[in-house]
Amino acid sequence: MGGKVEKQSETKVFGGWNRRYKHDSSVLGCSMTFTVYFPSGSNSKLPVLYYLSGLTCNDENVIQKSGCQRAAAQHGIAFVAPDTSPRGLSIEGEDESWDFGSGAGFYLNATQDKWKQYRMYDYITKELPEVLGQFDELDTSNAAITGHSMGGHGALVIGLRNPEQYKSISAFAPICHPVQVPWGEKAFGNYLGSNKEEWKQYDATKLAKSYKGPQRDILIDQGSKDNFLQNQLQPEHFEKAAAGNQALQCTLRMQEGYDHSYFFMASFMDDHIAHAAKHLK
Amino acid sequence: MGGKVEKQSETKVFGGWNRRYKHDSSVLGCSMTFTVYFPSGSNSKLPVLYYLSGLTCNDENVIQKSGCQRAAAQHGIAFVAPDTSPRGLSIEGEDESWDFGSGAGFYLNATQDKWKQYRMYDYITKELPEVLGQFDELDTSNAAITGHSMGGHGALVIGLRNPEQYKSISAFAPICHPVQVPWGEKAFGNYLGSNKEEWKQYDATKLAKSYKGPQRDILIDQGSKDNFLQNQLQPEHFEKAAAGNQALQCTLRMQEGYDHSYFFMASFMDDHIAHAAKHLK
Repeated sequence: MGGKVEKQSETKVFGGWNRRYKHDSSVLGCSMTFTVYFPSGSNSKLPVLYYLSGLTCNDENVIQKSGCQRAAAQHGIAFVAPDTSPRGLSIEGEDESWDFGSGAGFYLNATQDKWKQYRMYDYITKELPEVLGQFDELDTSNAAITGHSMGGHGALVIGLRNPEQYKSISAFAPICHPVQVPWGEKAFGNYLGSNKEEWKQYDATKLAKSYKGPQRDILIDQGSKDNFLQNQLQPEHFEKAAAGNQALQCTLRMQEGYDHSYFFMASFMDDHIAHAAKHLK
Repeated sequence: MGGKVEKQSETKVFGGWNRRYKHDSSVLGCSMTFTVYFPSGSNSKLPVLYYLSGLTCNDENVIQKSGCQRAAAQHGIAFVAPDTSPRGLSIEGEDESWDFGSGAGFYLNATQDKWKQYRMYDYITKELPEVLGQFDELDTSNAAITGHSMGGHGALVIGLRNPEQYKSISAFAPICHPVQVPWGEKAFGNYLGSNKEEWKQYDATKLAKSYKGPQRDILIDQGSKDNFLQNQLQPEHFEKAAAGNQALQCTLRMQEGYDHSYFFMASFMDDHIAHAAKHLK
């Protein structure tokens, strides 16, 4: 699984290297691209922080706009930025919406026949770690997860469902209760079908209620002027669900005046990398 | 001069605000866009750091990719990012080259009739400061200048020719001796005509030889793996010229392994903002 990895480019930044790779994904049935930032100067294997991006993005946005490399270098953490969906599968309608299909995989395994190759949950949790296992510099058993918006949803869901695999969880402006908001209803309805019972396994608020794993201290930053806050993101539901679960502690920071952009995320990226560093070996 | 300024957008980042403005430039005869990052928390007027961008860029690249806001906030400096040329003048051939015309104003005043509206030198040194004078938050008499590549050329030339106006000069991978490299020959030949005597006033190396102003301590960072280093940038000429002038001190740092990209620039942006801060009140 995972296939041979080909390096597409490398660029030095903050003393380490952005390296962009391509590989043939057997899970998704297409070629996939991802970027890893490798800090330099460490003699031991690097812990890994997965960063899941939001709607319309690929691996490049966070690498170019967040300044993540500075804190990753400081803490000696490899920063892994995957793409947000399969690409080029020639499914009818795949490229028609900015919030569904290409660039909008929602980090789930689709069950509806038309979209059955959309298996970003398995790609992120199984295939990508296996691919990264080919790199001698990385210790994929020592991993954390974060993400932005749709990727924040992905980080919360994947982190809560796989606590043995991710030692730390955080999110920037995550979609916290997708089963009841327009983005989630559109994506889950099309990828998973009309049976809403199937949707719950990908809803961070539902998962926070039922979570039974080891203690997790989850950091969420949210801009108060984010246009999507009330209709799509709804962090208050996640916060309340986590407050009712003794195994979870959620620190939801409402950041006054910030919007949904990479400027918001860049402003708090250091805190999220420090949060991951605290829980990694 | 400068006209009414209209705010196009504002976004909170690192506690302050990116604000993007449009105004009708009387110097250039077109509408121009620029962005100012205003750090928050200062009770006195903010010093100003002008950042001149390179070929093909507008004001947005450095604002989105360099992480300049972090250090600008830390030092309480307003970071000003202008565009790199006039826009939309409907001059034949204006949009045909990536290294000439739109996005490539070279921070000079063109003398050839066809390009006579290309007067970025006057725009940056006269009109833009006057426009910024409308902002109560800014002290434009307390200013520094920096830039990247073509903008590094602009920063060196403008800083050396106007020491009363800019208290500090630095540059990232500047075009140091444009009169003898392909980018400079193409631009200067077309904008200034064939008399090479006219070119010298826009050549940082020539200016470093003849500079007679107050002491200037100039910081230059240059990536050792920059593809343009030998054919276009040639910082060794500027370094040598500055070494022969007692009024100048040039610290040229050859940064091993870095290229010409925003990743290089982001890696050293903090040092350049700190350099400006050291010389501003």
